[in-house]
Amino acid sequence: MIRLDFSNILTEEIGHNGLSLIEIENEAKKSISLLSKKPYKELDFINLPFQDTSQIKELAKKARDYEYFIVLGIGGSALGPRVLLEALSPFNNLRKKNRVFIYDNVDPATFKYIIEIIDLKKTLINVISKSGSTAETLASFLLFWRMIRDRKLDVRQHFIFTTDSEKGNLKMIADEYEIPSLEIPKNVVGRYSVLTPVGLLLSEVIGIKSEELLEGAKEISERAYRENLNENPMAYLASCLYLMDKLKNRKVLVFLPYSDRLKTMSEWFCQLWAESLGKEGKGTTPYPSLGTTDQHSQLQLWMEGPEDKVILFVSIDNHGFQEEIPQEFHDIEGLRYLGGHTLEELINTEQLATEMALRMNKKPNMKIIIPKIDSFIIGQLFQFLQITTAMAGLLYGVNPFNQPGVELGKRLTYGAMGKRGFETEGEEVKNYLKRQRYMI
Amino acid sequence: MIRLDFSNILTEEIGHNGLSLIEIENEAKKSISLLSKKPYKELDFINLPFQDTSQIKELAKKARDYEYFIVLGIGGSALGPRVLLEALSPFNNLRKKNRVFIYDNVDPATFKYIIEIIDLKKTLINVISKSGSTAETLASFLLFWRMIRDRKLDVRQHFIFTTDSEKGNLKMIADEYEIPSLEIPKNVVGRYSVLTPVGLLLSEVIGIKSEELLEGAKEISERAYRENLNENPMAYLASCLYLMDKLKNRKVLVFLPYSDRLKTMSEWFCQLWAESLGKEGKGTTPYPSLGTTDQHSQLQLWMEGPEDKVILFVSIDNHGFQEEIPQEFHDIEGLRYLGGHTLEELINTEQLATEMALRMNKKPNMKIIIPKIDSFIIGQLFQFLQITTAMAGLLYGVNPFNQPGVELGKRLTYGAMGKRGFETEGEEVKNYLKRQRYMI
Repeated sequence: MIRLDFSNILTEEIGHNGLSLIEIENEAKKSISLLSKKPYKELDFINLPFQDTSQIKELAKKARDYEYFIVLGIGGSALGPRVLLEALSPFNNLRKKNRVFIYDNVDPATFKYIIEIIDLKKTLINVISKSGSTAETLASFLLFWRMIRDRKLDVRQHFIFTTDSEKGNLKMIADEYEIPSLEIPKNVVGRYSVLTPVGLLLSEVIGIKSEELLEGAKEISERAYRENLNENPMAYLASCLYLMDKLKNRKVLVFLPYSDRLKTMSEWFCQLWAESLGKEGKGTTPYPSLGTTDQHSQLQLWMEGPEDKVILFVSIDNHGFQEEIPQEFHDIEGLRYLGGHTLEELINTEQLATEMALRMNKKPNMKIIIPKIDSFIIGQLFQFLQITTAMAGLLYGVNPFNQPGVELGKRLTYGAMGKRGFETEGEEVKNYLKRQRYMI
Repeated sequence: MIRLDFSNILTEEIGHNGLSLIEIENEAKKSISLLSKKPYKELDFINLPFQDTSQIKELAKKARDYEYFIVLGIGGSALGPRVLLEALSPFNNLRKKNRVFIYDNVDPATFKYIIEIIDLKKTLINVISKSGSTAETLASFLLFWRMIRDRKLDVRQHFIFTTDSEKGNLKMIADEYEIPSLEIPKNVVGRYSVLTPVGLLLSEVIGIKSEELLEGAKEISERAYRENLNENPMAYLASCLYLMDKLKNRKVLVFLPYSDRLKTMSEWFCQLWAESLGKEGKGTTPYPSLGTTDQHSQLQLWMEGPEDKVILFVSIDNHGFQEEIPQEFHDIEGLRYLGGHTLEELINTEQLATEMALRMNKKPNMKIIIPKIDSFIIGQLFQFLQITTAMAGLLYGVNPFNQPGVELGKRLTYGAMGKRGFETEGEEVKNYLKRQRYMI
C-alpha cells in the first residue's frame, strides 16, 4: 500500500510556512464529504477497477503477434499509456520484440522517423480519441490509413480504435469498415482514462496483466469515501496541497519521483492536475520533476528562489537491483566513501538528504512512499493521484472534469485549416498575420 | 539566424499585463552595459566558439569504432549532451549502429537495463565531471571501472574522462592510469559547458561536426556586446523576462518549443535558468514544455489559471517532412478539412493559434523563430539562451554562475554515506530518522 508522509508540511517542523494538523484534518474531512455527494457523473472513474477486461485481453492477444504497436492519441490518450510503457517495460524498444511507439505530437520529423523504422505489414495501430475529433490524432490516422490501403493491406487487420461507445468520427468509421474497437466509458474523461482500454490494451500488449493494475487501483477506490482519515491518504494530500495554495500562496507543486521509471508519471500527473484545477483564476502549476537529476537543476531554485513551491517526493523502497559499488581507490576520499554502498542506498539517501535540506530551510515538502514499482503499485498510484486531484477540485469549487480554456485555440486552428463553420476564426487568423510585428 | 518576436508582450497588444517598448529597451541597454563590464570570469563561455577542436575530433574518431557510447554525468554534464543526441540524432538507438546511453540519475534499475543491453567489450565510457567529485557520476564510474577490470579489459581503451584541466579525482586517476582525457576550460561552469568537450565529443561521435555547432554559436557570441539593440535579441529577451517578473510578478516562464526534437532542450534550459537565477529569493520558475502536446495538458491552466506565467514559444519554419495529409472521408467534416494540408502546416498552425488565443486572453507571450533544426541552429540556440540567462542574472543582481543552495543536501548525503569530515551531518541524518513522522 502507498503511504503518505506529511510531517514536513506541519508548523512544528517548518514554522510559519507550515500548516496545523487541525487545519489539514478539517479540510480533509470536507473533501471526503464533498466527494461523497458525487456531484459529477465523471467521478465514475472511481469504479473502473471493477470493470470486465475480457474484450481487451482478447484483442491484446492478437496484437502481440505484431512486431510494431503504434498508439495515435494525445493528452489523456497518450500520457497514461506512456507511463505504463516506461514504468513497467523500460527500454522496451531495445529489449523486446514488440516495439511500441506513442505518436502524440503531430511532429512531422517524428512521423518520418517512425515510418522509416517500422514495417507496415507487421504494424498494428491503436487510434485513441474519446471524442473522435482530435485534430492531431485524426491527421496522423489519415496518413496511416492511406499507407495501409496503398499497400493493399486490410484495414481490419491493422487498426484498433479506442473511442466513445456511441458517437464520433472514429465510431462511424469503425462501424463502416468493421474496425475492431474498444470503448471508453461514457462518463470517463480523457485525463482520468488510463484505467480504461486507453491504457489497458497497451499494458496487455507489453505483457502487463490489466487485472494487476486494477487490483491495485481497487484498494485505493475502496478508500475514496472513507471518513476515517487514517484510511484516506488522498483526503490528506488534497487538503495539504489546497491549503498550501489558499493559505500560503504556494502556487507551484513539484512532483518529484526518485526513479527514471516514473519520469513520465510526472508528465501524466501534470496534465491531470493542471487541466483539472486550472480554471476561474484558481489552481496551481504542477511541475514535472525527477530525482536525483533535478537536484542538479532545480534544487537551487527551490532552496533559495521565491517562496512559492511545495515539493511532493515519491520515494521507492526497493529499486530491484542491489549490486554494491566497488571499494576501489581507497586513498581517494572522494571515491572511498561510496564503496560498499549500493546505488539504491545512494539514490534513497539523496532523496532523504534533499527532503531534510528543504525542511531545514523551512520549505514545505511531502512524501509518497511506495515499496517498489510494479503493475499493482502503478495502478495504486494512478488511482491515488486521480482521486486526490478530484478532491482538490471539489475543495477549490471548480469542475475538475472540463477544460473550457482550450476551446479558443482549437477554434482558431479549425479556422486556419479551413474547417466548415469556422470561417470567422479563419478571418481572425488572417488579420492577425497581417499585423505589424515587433521582431528582431 | 534566430529571430525574436516580442509583439505579444507589449501593452498595445495585451493591455495592462504588457510592457512598454521604452521600458523594455531601457532595461535591454542596461543588460548590455552590465555584460560589457565582464563582471565574472565565468563569462568566458562566450568565447567558446573560438576554441580549437582537433583533440576532440581525434578522440571521437576512435570512439566511433565502438558500438556503445555511454556518458556518465549529471546536471550540466548530461543535459547538454542529451539535447545534442535527441535534437540532432533522433531515435538514435533504433536507427544507428552506435548506440548512446546518457546515464545521469543513479537509478539502479536503469543501470541494470543498460548493462543488460550493452556488450562491455564494445563499449566506450565517457565520464564527465568538472569537479571530479560528483557523487552520482563517481558511483556509476566505480561500477563500470570494476566491470571493465573484472573482464581483463584495458581501462585505457574503454574510458575517456572529461574534467577539469588541473585538479580533482578524475584528473588524478587519468594521470595514474593514462586514461585519455579532455579538458573543461577552467572558467566555464557546468550548465554553460555544452559547447566544451562535454557536448562536443558526443556530437562528433554521433556524426555532428562540432565546427557547425560552434559556427552557429559564434554568430551569437559576436552580438553579445552590441549596443545597437536591433542586433542584440538576447538583450531584448533578458529584459522582457526580467521585467515580467519585476513589474508584473509573473514567476513562471514556460519554455515551449513545437518540435519533439527540442523537448530535451526545454530541460536543459530549465537547469540553466533555474540554477543561474534562483537565489536571494529572486528568479522565476522555468517550466519545461512541448507543443502541441501541452496544449492538451497545460494550456487550460495557462488560459484560465493564476496570472503568473509568461510563455516563450520556439517555432520551427521547416520540419523537414512535407507529406500531405490524404484527402479521405470527404463526407465527414471532422476529417475532410485536414486533407491536403501537411503535418507541418498543422503543427505550425496550432502554434500560431495558441499564441493568438493567449494574446486574446491578454496573456504575455513571446516567440523565438528558427528556420529549421540542424547543428548550426542548435549551436545558435545554446549560445542565445546562455547569453540571455547571464544577462538576466546581471539585471537581477545575482551571480549567475554559482549554486550555493545545493551544498546542504550534498553535505547531508556525504554524512549519511560516511564520508570523512561530514560526521556532524551524519548525526543529523540519524536524528532526523528517529523523529516522529506523521504518516498514513
